Amino acid sequence: MSKDELTLAAFQRHIHERYYASDSARGTAGTFLWFIEEVGELATALHGDDRANLEEEFADVLAWLCTLANINDVDLAAAVKRKYLTGSGPAGHK
Amino acid sequence: MSKDELTLAAFQRHIHERYYASDSARGTAGTFLWFIEEVGELATALHGDDRANLEEEFADVLAWLCTLANINDVDLAAAVKRKYLTGSGPAGHK
Repeated sequence: MSKDELTLAAFQRHIHERYYASDSARGTAGTFLWFIEEVGELATALHGDDRANLEEEFADVLAWLCTLANINDVDLAAAVKRKYLTGSGPAGHK
Repeated sequence: MSKDELTLAAFQRHIHERYYASDSARGTAGTFLWFIEEVGELATALHGDDRANLEEEFADVLAWLCTLANINDVDLAAAVKRKYLTGSGPAGHK
């Protein structure tokens, strides 16, 4: 599968299959802490000049967002479709 | 297009087409501030009981992550494919 064929649903499902047991046991508060740690690492990478690290931190933030969604029964693809791809979407700055 | 057909690349491209001009003018630091505001709203929604709002906040965080990626020339699908879908992916807790 090429990167351009990767659906949001498939990636969220992959994170579910691979990590749900431990994610679910950790719970939302503990998982949010991990998520924020990755957000902090993304901030650090954004003002650095290591492109490979920057890409990895973006990937990690998205993976942890999928984890948070999984343990809260949220379908990310459905959520973004409803908010951003229905009608004309939010105007201006989202 | 069904929600399950939505590719990560298509969603990032949609955010690009719809908002890149203003996102780019705002720059990374200002955009990170918006991103974090949405992360805060997600935290609030996670301990509330409004499901529609929770889904919307997940969508907003993902949209702002796409924005940050767009203005930093990062291809999110390529980044997650490299880190999470190549070989066996990171073990344990990512």
